[in-house]
Amino acid sequence: MTFNDLIDRRGTFSSKWDKMEQLFGVSPEDGLAMWTADSDYATAPCVIEAVRRAADHGVFGYSWQHPAYLQAVQWWMQNRHDWAIDTDWVLTTQGLGNAIALSLDVWTEPGDGVVIFTPVYHEFAHKVNKTGRRVVECPLVRAGDTYEIDLDDAQSRLDGSERMLIWCSPQNPSGRVWTVDELRAVAAFAERNGLILISDEIHHDLVYPGHKFVPMDVAAPDARPWTVTLTAASKTFNIAGQRTGNMIIPDETLRAQMRHRLNTLDYDPSALGVAMITAAYTPEGAEWVDAQIDHLNGNRALFDATISEIPGLWSMPLQATYLAWVDFSGTGMDHAEFVRRLRQDAQIATSPGPGFGTGGETFERFNLATQRTRVEEACARLKAAFSDLQ
Amino acid sequence: MTFNDLIDRRGTFSSKWDKMEQLFGVSPEDGLAMWTADSDYATAPCVIEAVRRAADHGVFGYSWQHPAYLQAVQWWMQNRHDWAIDTDWVLTTQGLGNAIALSLDVWTEPGDGVVIFTPVYHEFAHKVNKTGRRVVECPLVRAGDTYEIDLDDAQSRLDGSERMLIWCSPQNPSGRVWTVDELRAVAAFAERNGLILISDEIHHDLVYPGHKFVPMDVAAPDARPWTVTLTAASKTFNIAGQRTGNMIIPDETLRAQMRHRLNTLDYDPSALGVAMITAAYTPEGAEWVDAQIDHLNGNRALFDATISEIPGLWSMPLQATYLAWVDFSGTGMDHAEFVRRLRQDAQIATSPGPGFGTGGETFERFNLATQRTRVEEACARLKAAFSDLQ
Repeated sequence: MTFNDLIDRRGTFSSKWDKMEQLFGVSPEDGLAMWTADSDYATAPCVIEAVRRAADHGVFGYSWQHPAYLQAVQWWMQNRHDWAIDTDWVLTTQGLGNAIALSLDVWTEPGDGVVIFTPVYHEFAHKVNKTGRRVVECPLVRAGDTYEIDLDDAQSRLDGSERMLIWCSPQNPSGRVWTVDELRAVAAFAERNGLILISDEIHHDLVYPGHKFVPMDVAAPDARPWTVTLTAASKTFNIAGQRTGNMIIPDETLRAQMRHRLNTLDYDPSALGVAMITAAYTPEGAEWVDAQIDHLNGNRALFDATISEIPGLWSMPLQATYLAWVDFSGTGMDHAEFVRRLRQDAQIATSPGPGFGTGGETFERFNLATQRTRVEEACARLKAAFSDLQ
Repeated sequence: MTFNDLIDRRGTFSSKWDKMEQLFGVSPEDGLAMWTADSDYATAPCVIEAVRRAADHGVFGYSWQHPAYLQAVQWWMQNRHDWAIDTDWVLTTQGLGNAIALSLDVWTEPGDGVVIFTPVYHEFAHKVNKTGRRVVECPLVRAGDTYEIDLDDAQSRLDGSERMLIWCSPQNPSGRVWTVDELRAVAAFAERNGLILISDEIHHDLVYPGHKFVPMDVAAPDARPWTVTLTAASKTFNIAGQRTGNMIIPDETLRAQMRHRLNTLDYDPSALGVAMITAAYTPEGAEWVDAQIDHLNGNRALFDATISEIPGLWSMPLQATYLAWVDFSGTGMDHAEFVRRLRQDAQIATSPGPGFGTGGETFERFNLATQRTRVEEACARLKAAFSDLQ
């Protein structure tokens, strides 16, 4: 299968397609699901083959986080990210949403402040709030055609009650790939303020030509005593439904604390999740990811070209991720009118920008991880829905 | 595939087979893995078909605990156990080990007493201990060829610091199917002592002819305000590696407490786990389970006949489960000598009886969920290893 073979996900209990009508009023009959961050194309053949092998075997008994799995994770980090990790550092969780929740559980108390740089993945604030912690928003600053961090401003927003910083790298929703200097500055900011630094690097593999992702642990190895990195094959290989992700924790104390918590919750990864990731983190998987990046690069070029033709709309140039961050402030519309046109006129479900926190008020996030024809269809609909702006 | 088709699980990252040498010194080359509770035969064709469909689809994106899944769980409980449940009552966890750990997390504090009736599934005490709670053992009483509960004795062992009772029904390792009167007495005992009653019913589907399993909630519906039932397709369909199980909680308050905890941990079941269970809890799945029970019934008849021919050994007649509970006290051997013969002479890995708590000192647990030829081979080896007793 190629990235352009149409797959009908409707009726497959896909959250993205089958909850679209309930959540956004966009009918799956004609609608385009461009919200939650999974892909509409099939995963790598080597991953599918692993699932087929499991079906052929037919026995789905107990397994564990076995050496071949840990070595595959290690191989991937070394070969794709020039990151040398020990297999000991890898703790497997029920996906990275669970990893963030567990981090809040282990390293913060109710009432503690948790720093996030907004606009950022809406689930950060959501998880902080629902666990009774307190969101401390530090807005990113628009600089040229992307975002930058302003750590002096951020410092002024802290009152000393903060215990954690949840960092997103590459950044969702802007697609920003942070520089080594920026990463080091963030690590130092965390140290200065006594914050555990959770570096969510789930989008690390989907980086466009001309940009180089650097893991926090590579940029700032001195920060290990207060840093935890989250990685997963979920976005890279479109296997988020399997809910398996890794915390990579070089620091022995932090690792022992998290291992103890996972142990007391009696968590163990699913055998199929482990098998799929073991199959993904291979040379065959890497080749497939390269092809996927080419595909996504074409999708974003097409999408951005269309957006640039609609007066008042602007799409932030992506350095990474398949998530386009579209500013509609130039249209003069309010958020309600903009999404009314998206949903009712264009029949497109997107992720609402305001959910990403301060700075997201005039944005919507479009998921471009789909077939080219669907991006083309979305472009045609957007042109029509905003034709009065021409 | 039939229950007797030989499947080689060695090298498939099967805990049961691939950790046998490390844990028991039994080489997988010649050894027989009869310890941890999964099966050596393939699951039901309808479950394998669900995995194949997922592979054919190729997209493993986000899903959820969808209505078809919940309705399948509801259908199964109604049709297999005459148990009418609301789909609302079903909370999905990362398997039942995780469900027990979560129950301890939500409804007890470190230092609290947790009551178990021993010998019982070794993980109960293990989980209680590793979360810093306190095991309160109440021994079961040998009565005829099975166990009974002695609630007067149990009462005398409590000091008022107990907060939870973890109950096993059908009972592992004895295979006892509790009567309605016994279940009601246990529910009343829990109420009298202010205990949350966790009824682990994971083996509920594997019950032999002549015995009738009754869910705690059917036997003692009045106990709902303090009762939580744990069920899973893991043992029934040999899909424990997928790590998906259900807590069924009729009481609104208890359910809200657990739902909140799952929510703050950002737990969601894996899409494949949900798909496999949805496929399992069907008429096709039920037919396969009936055939499996026939197969297991033949295995235990053969095994028990062999054990009864070895002077000093005795196998408790199973009413349910594929786990044979073998008493070697009549041999006069100590535990070390008995397992030395099992492991070194017979090359069989079994679950050590002492791990099941008081009452398990002179026992080993044998997993019979395997091909008939492997049971035959185990029987031949046992006869040889204990031939001096003839």
